[in-house]
Amino acid sequence: MIETQEDFKAKVAEIQAQPWYKNPIGFGLARIDRGQLNTDKILQATFPVVNWGENFGSAAVFLDALNESGAAVDCTGSELVCDVNDKFTKIAMDTFAPYLDEAFGQAHKNVQVILELEGKDTAGYKMVFIFEDTKPQSVETAYLKLYALSTGKAELRKICLDGAFGILENVAWSGTLPIELDWLRENEVSLKMTGSYPVIDMVDKFPRFLSHIIPADNTRILDTSKVRMGAQLAAGTTVMPGASYINFNAGTLGPVMVEGRISSSAIVGSGSDVGGGASILGVLSGTDGNPISIGENTLLGANSTTGIPLGDACIVDGGVALFAGTKITISDDQIAKIQEANPEAKLSNSMRADALQGLNGVHFRQNSVTGQMQAFRSTREVKLNADLH
Amino acid sequence: MIETQEDFKAKVAEIQAQPWYKNPIGFGLARIDRGQLNTDKILQATFPVVNWGENFGSAAVFLDALNESGAAVDCTGSELVCDVNDKFTKIAMDTFAPYLDEAFGQAHKNVQVILELEGKDTAGYKMVFIFEDTKPQSVETAYLKLYALSTGKAELRKICLDGAFGILENVAWSGTLPIELDWLRENEVSLKMTGSYPVIDMVDKFPRFLSHIIPADNTRILDTSKVRMGAQLAAGTTVMPGASYINFNAGTLGPVMVEGRISSSAIVGSGSDVGGGASILGVLSGTDGNPISIGENTLLGANSTTGIPLGDACIVDGGVALFAGTKITISDDQIAKIQEANPEAKLSNSMRADALQGLNGVHFRQNSVTGQMQAFRSTREVKLNADLH
Amino acid sequence: MIETQEDFKAKVAEIQAQPWYKNPIGFGLARIDRGQLNTDKILQATFPVVNWGENFGSAAVFLDALNESGAAVDCTGSELVCDVNDKFTKIAMDTFAPYLDEAFGQAHKNVQVILELEGKDTAGYKMVFIFEDTKPQSVETAYLKLYALSTGKAELRKICLDGAFGILENVAWSGTLPIELDWLRENEVSLKMTGSYPVIDMVDKFPRFLSHIIPADNTRILDTSKVRMGAQLAAGTTVMPGASYINFNAGTLGPVMVEGRISSSAIVGSGSDVGGGASILGVLSGTDGNPISIGENTLLGANSTTGIPLGDACIVDGGVALFAGTKITISDDQIAKIQEANPEAKLSNSMRADALQGLNGVHFRQNSVTGQMQAFRSTREVKLNADLH
Repeated sequence: MIETQEDFKAKVAEIQAQPWYKNPIGFGLARIDRGQLNTDKILQATFPVVNWGENFGSAAVFLDALNESGAAVDCTGSELVCDVNDKFTKIAMDTFAPYLDEAFGQAHKNVQVILELEGKDTAGYKMVFIFEDTKPQSVETAYLKLYALSTGKAELRKICLDGAFGILENVAWSGTLPIELDWLRENEVSLKMTGSYPVIDMVDKFPRFLSHIIPADNTRILDTSKVRMGAQLAAGTTVMPGASYINFNAGTLGPVMVEGRISSSAIVGSGSDVGGGASILGVLSGTDGNPISIGENTLLGANSTTGIPLGDACIVDGGVALFAGTKITISDDQIAKIQEANPEAKLSNSMRADALQGLNGVHFRQNSVTGQMQAFRSTREVKLNADLH
Repeated sequence: MIETQEDFKAKVAEIQAQPWYKNPIGFGLARIDRGQLNTDKILQATFPVVNWGENFGSAAVFLDALNESGAAVDCTGSELVCDVNDKFTKIAMDTFAPYLDEAFGQAHKNVQVILELEGKDTAGYKMVFIFEDTKPQSVETAYLKLYALSTGKAELRKICLDGAFGILENVAWSGTLPIELDWLRENEVSLKMTGSYPVIDMVDKFPRFLSHIIPADNTRILDTSKVRMGAQLAAGTTVMPGASYINFNAGTLGPVMVEGRISSSAIVGSGSDVGGGASILGVLSGTDGNPISIGENTLLGANSTTGIPLGDACIVDGGVALFAGTKITISDDQIAKIQEANPEAKLSNSMRADALQGLNGVHFRQNSVTGQMQAFRSTREVKLNADLH
Repeated sequence: MIETQEDFKAKVAEIQAQPWYKNPIGFGLARIDRGQLNTDKILQATFPVVNWGENFGSAAVFLDALNESGAAVDCTGSELVCDVNDKFTKIAMDTFAPYLDEAFGQAHKNVQVILELEGKDTAGYKMVFIFEDTKPQSVETAYLKLYALSTGKAELRKICLDGAFGILENVAWSGTLPIELDWLRENEVSLKMTGSYPVIDMVDKFPRFLSHIIPADNTRILDTSKVRMGAQLAAGTTVMPGASYINFNAGTLGPVMVEGRISSSAIVGSGSDVGGGASILGVLSGTDGNPISIGENTLLGANSTTGIPLGDACIVDGGVALFAGTKITISDDQIAKIQEANPEAKLSNSMRADALQGLNGVHFRQNSVTGQMQAFRSTREVKLNADLH
């Protein structure tokens, strides 16, 4: 009987000491949406609580309860997805006994999950564990990784999502409910004849960010379709509803005004502004696998296109298209000024744009008299790293 | 009594031989949404099954059943929209008798429609036929034509939609339900005071593609607002949620990545990529009535604008605006290379863009040193038509 | 006892003559949405009827009824927000007695409001008055001002909205229902475990235009997310779903095709066309506080960017970016032609774009051979003001 927090800790230590046990990178209980026709198909996994590099005590409780309730627990693979049953719930509840009374609000969320699970049909839930960050093998672990990114618990670009597109089902979404396209086909005549054809908001493999994630108090997303699950938005980010879009495994590191596109793998630093219709190219779209980071306090003007990484305090003028191979002309005095902000840079009067990548305080403009693409020292302040210089 | 498939075929042949009978181009039973205030106004027609140049046996059954049930059947006009009644349903059901047991799933969809109609209030349904492809005269036939396009049963640009804008009502859409604006006005005080004002998703004459059409398994539409009813999306097309949009009578002929705008009448070939914010102008917006086709494997860069038709394997660089009158400079060696991919083309060092329209393998760029708009042979492979050369 | 319209008028005159009374600029009864956790927080105010510079008789009735029913009525501040009670409803109803029978449809809307209020729990409603157009002090008056703009009762840019962002709560919107983010956090585990997590359409301080406003019969908004509450759309305006967006305190003065962005404070004149992805910069985004007006019959090409005010009949070519400091080259003959359309203009061969601001009939293009930004007399007709010339 586990009656005190000391009992609980002892029990966790005992589990963790067992030879079969391994701490997971991430884990959680998922509610599962299944195919309406093919109930073996998992269409969506919803995690009330996401654990990522944390709460190993709860992981131990869950793995032990699975073990004791008859599941085939194997921690040697990269991931583990298990059915749960009433015995699992009971064992976990018993182990969590010292915390049951305090599990509400923001406290003991994993315990809250078990309290909610009690009495429900366990067929709709799965325990999901990731032990090694390799290609996801299941819909459930693909979702857990998207959650890790979107909750900000994992860093952008630091999680392996290879093959996720192949694992996730392409489904019709009616609000938060995924519907098999085949089910719609089977029932189209009946649904349309009775006026009960569902409202379809999108057809995609990924759900939307706002269907799973609660943003920070000062984060604003003016249209849910604009942010895909797996995106990461730092507090204070605003996503406007015009031409904007943030793909999975892309996002912001601080307050950013987003009126343009942040493609998959692109990251934008604090205080920067992605202007209306501005495009940051992604690894899937034109950067030859070079993921683009935009520094802090940088401005991408309206309808500009950026295909190279930029440092802090840069400006890309509205309408300018900047690719790796764009030839940039720089005058001698501007070379000197840009050099001041970037002591290590090697600059010349005519450079490819990618030779300027990552530099701070560069202003990219098209000369309106000659049509030439030019670089200037921007009017924005660059803070040099005192340690380096 | 029609008891066998032979009986059915004989009955159909008998109907088709009658002097008043004519095979329709398209037909279907529509569920009708009427005005909430003015119930004579048809706000929407939903087709559980669309027949277009096919299933003439079912057409015969329906027209005969209308005739026998008292409707004024006239096949000499361009279209026919008829009320239905219980007698109609019974006669059609009797004629379809040999198929009633097999009418489920993907089989005998027109029979399924009649099975569903049985026992329902027939006031909510109409039989709709198009005999000649001229201007639609009714909301019902305008919808049938939009369905023909969006199901891919009719080719883009090959159906007459003239005057459709004048026929369709501008209404507020709450999900799949159209609501008269006047009804909202009449009931605004009461709806708002009781907290029951409906969620309005849009106000338009056309509904959305996904409210009526089930796309192919590998087609993705990340935001339902981006594709209007009447658009056509080939299997494998992906429509992203940023600046994209596909208007009616426009779309794709194969897998296409759509992150930009495909305006009315524009068509994009298989394997092409409409980059983030790229605009393909439409006949309603700047092409002087010249509908734009984009070939296969062509790339329209982010924030580019294309106002001329392009062939296969072309590239329009990000940010480039290409109109009929844009002057394009081509060097001698690039003329030779473009000529290789387009043996019949007549090229010179300075040409209007529209003189290059439809050519294959052309790369349109703005020189970043001189600001000049130039054409090069693209790096993409062009497959010459072996029959011609 | 008020039995006739004459009685009513006498009563109103009597109220208006009282020393404490003052006619409000705007007023209305609001239904209030409160925080789910913190019920002191006002999340949204919905006005069934908005009065702005009109219906002072109703204002008198409401203020008197508040006074008589025990509310602290003070007309000396810039605004007044009062709770209502059953006594308020009864007094207002008694005063409106001569109109009760005719209060339906478009007649006597303020009376309809009181009729609807009768029998309801008055805790969900507030009377809201604005006496002076200064910074809004409450959510209710901020909403009333947004309504005044969006109903077209107040002119764009003529209302003080300073500080409104600070007053409005950032909330999750599920259709028309605002939900506290903290409430979602408190209930996340339970909502997700039971499959009842709400569909979140956006997270913002402002609601959407179409959640509160019924547009004119010929106005079309193809995606509700594209128009923010506080925007103003003249009849006949069409907002397409691609890259378009109209912010609060921005909009159109006549039929306008909107496929681009109309930023906060920007105004577009009748007959103009904001092309696909075109950006009109706002005071919050790059115009140095210079609000941009676009005249009538002006065309902003696809993916163009406009950072200066433009007159009538102008053209900004697709892809062109026009900022205050852009250098514009004009040939002598074009100077003459532009001068004809703008007799007072002072023109030279090389000018900053902002020196051309507000002129009529100017066509801004980038020369495709030299890359130079040039101005021409547009092909569009300019109607000179007969009074001036």
